[in-house]
Amino acid sequence: MAERAQSVVALGGGHGLHASLRALRGLVDDLVVDELSAVVTVADNGGSSGRLRGEFGVLPPGDLRMALAALCGDDDWGVTWAKVLQHRFAGDGEMRGHVVGNLLIVSLWELLGDHVQALDWVGRLLGASGRVLPMALNALDIAAEVRGLVPADPRATTTVRGQVEVATTEGDIVSIRLEPEPVACPEAVAAIREADWVVLGPGSWFTSVLPHLVVPELREALVQTDARILVVLNLGEQAGETHGLAPEDHLAVLAEHAPGLKIHTVLADPSIVGDPDRLAAAAASYGADLVAAPVAMDDGSARHDVARLAAAYERILARD
Amino acid sequence: MAERAQSVVALGGGHGLHASLRALRGLVDDLVVDELSAVVTVADNGGSSGRLRGEFGVLPPGDLRMALAALCGDDDWGVTWAKVLQHRFAGDGEMRGHVVGNLLIVSLWELLGDHVQALDWVGRLLGASGRVLPMALNALDIAAEVRGLVPADPRATTTVRGQVEVATTEGDIVSIRLEPEPVACPEAVAAIREADWVVLGPGSWFTSVLPHLVVPELREALVQTDARILVVLNLGEQAGETHGLAPEDHLAVLAEHAPGLKIHTVLADPSIVGDPDRLAAAAASYGADLVAAPVAMDDGSARHDVARLAAAYERILARD
Repeated sequence: MAERAQSVVALGGGHGLHASLRALRGLVDDLVVDELSAVVTVADNGGSSGRLRGEFGVLPPGDLRMALAALCGDDDWGVTWAKVLQHRFAGDGEMRGHVVGNLLIVSLWELLGDHVQALDWVGRLLGASGRVLPMALNALDIAAEVRGLVPADPRATTTVRGQVEVATTEGDIVSIRLEPEPVACPEAVAAIREADWVVLGPGSWFTSVLPHLVVPELREALVQTDARILVVLNLGEQAGETHGLAPEDHLAVLAEHAPGLKIHTVLADPSIVGDPDRLAAAAASYGADLVAAPVAMDDGSARHDVARLAAAYERILARD
Repeated sequence: MAERAQSVVALGGGHGLHASLRALRGLVDDLVVDELSAVVTVADNGGSSGRLRGEFGVLPPGDLRMALAALCGDDDWGVTWAKVLQHRFAGDGEMRGHVVGNLLIVSLWELLGDHVQALDWVGRLLGASGRVLPMALNALDIAAEVRGLVPADPRATTTVRGQVEVATTEGDIVSIRLEPEPVACPEAVAAIREADWVVLGPGSWFTSVLPHLVVPELREALVQTDARILVVLNLGEQAGETHGLAPEDHLAVLAEHAPGLKIHTVLADPSIVGDPDRLAAAAASYGADLVAAPVAMDDGSARHDVARLAAAYERILARD
């Protein structure tokens, strides 16, 4: 175990970030981590988030809400309010599919007029062990250059816009960018610059992990920070956005979107490593050690097991 | 001041109950009241409450939410969450007019499956000085017998259904009932039986104050309780439901809907007393003393002033 507790910033969105934060939250309880922040994508255009974004012109709140729920206290109070926050209305009416926490966050934004302050209020309600920050202060759209969508010309690229559309594209994603010009969240930039560790992934690679690297001020902070960068690889390809992408290709797209990024450690479940020498060599080419450790659930669900992820994080944070 | 702190139950709904609860909440801070409960109508069929009731088949949450906000703590925490709870969405979309606290209460009902427990959770969030209970555990509709809606026969009565419709009728309301058969909230019945004081009004007389008297178990508890009953009269007629109703008529309709009800004190602002002997005699006919005390706001708005109402309550609670 490290001599002193460390500060950690986790970048991502959706279910991958949720698992990572649950694991890191346990390390806060164990005093291995003393400061924990999540920096969350704000480019969702689907579901409840997409509807609220369209109706009120606000940041899509869904990924922020899910990150907050991941950090909630384990007492009766925290668990109950986290359940309320995550509650999705059923039925057949106008509320169908809306999530209560999204509505709460949007109303705090409207009342307080400050994104970060509002999220801190929800964090206090939940007794959250850490802070949830948006990666940008304006709602964004992902635009991807995608190859293979033009049957007549397999090498031609097409622009696909929208998180939902990019995540489900049948072509091969070459690169992504954000529209309009992102306004980085200053607290997120500062957290990355001041952290001991930055965790990238797991999560939807092009739509939850990479977007942070194409926010100029965040990319600059990631390249310049003294923090050690830990990349957590996914447990398999995702139908749609990472179809056909090998583990080493996941690293390659990070490097392509953020030239000069120094990676300290790559964490991968043994089930995806394949030829260990090849992945280790790929990691080394970005300056990183490969740590192969069992972090998958046993049920074959391609989801990370929170307890195993926590154990792997603890060992990695203790390394020099 | 009374020798010991007293328990108070306030019955009503809407803005009248809100003002009364703000006043009583101050007496909790001053240790004059040690236990405070609100028993709230659940017959609203308009606005956000009406939409949620229609969509989810739940109790209309709006009057409950407003009562909870009235009891919120005065610290930064309580004030902020009360503001969030009361926040009404604007815009032009599907959320327009919905109130965040209503959605929060409905989701807690769905999650916990217990009306009272869910309201207690919201009370804890707000640091509420007291408890908010629904008068019944099933959503109800007010049905009123109204005279004067048939031009050809001015003495004929017509049934008008729905809180909104009754509150805005152009006829004279003769009586109200509730549909379907109300299922009284047991905690509300117990609170009335165990209280030192029960406060009826101010508020929309037929749609917020009287409904409690036509829930059989609540009416029985009100007639049988040893609690002293304080009736707080409104500051004027309301267009629609109490058009043409004199202060003493307000007392008469209470007695007609709950025969055997013993009133201890009637509180009225001097501006509505008119002939003091006549109103005092009317009060006396139900066993009550008339207390005329300035409780109106100075702005002519026909709203009660919370500080003046608190001062009047404190003097009345100190009487033998």
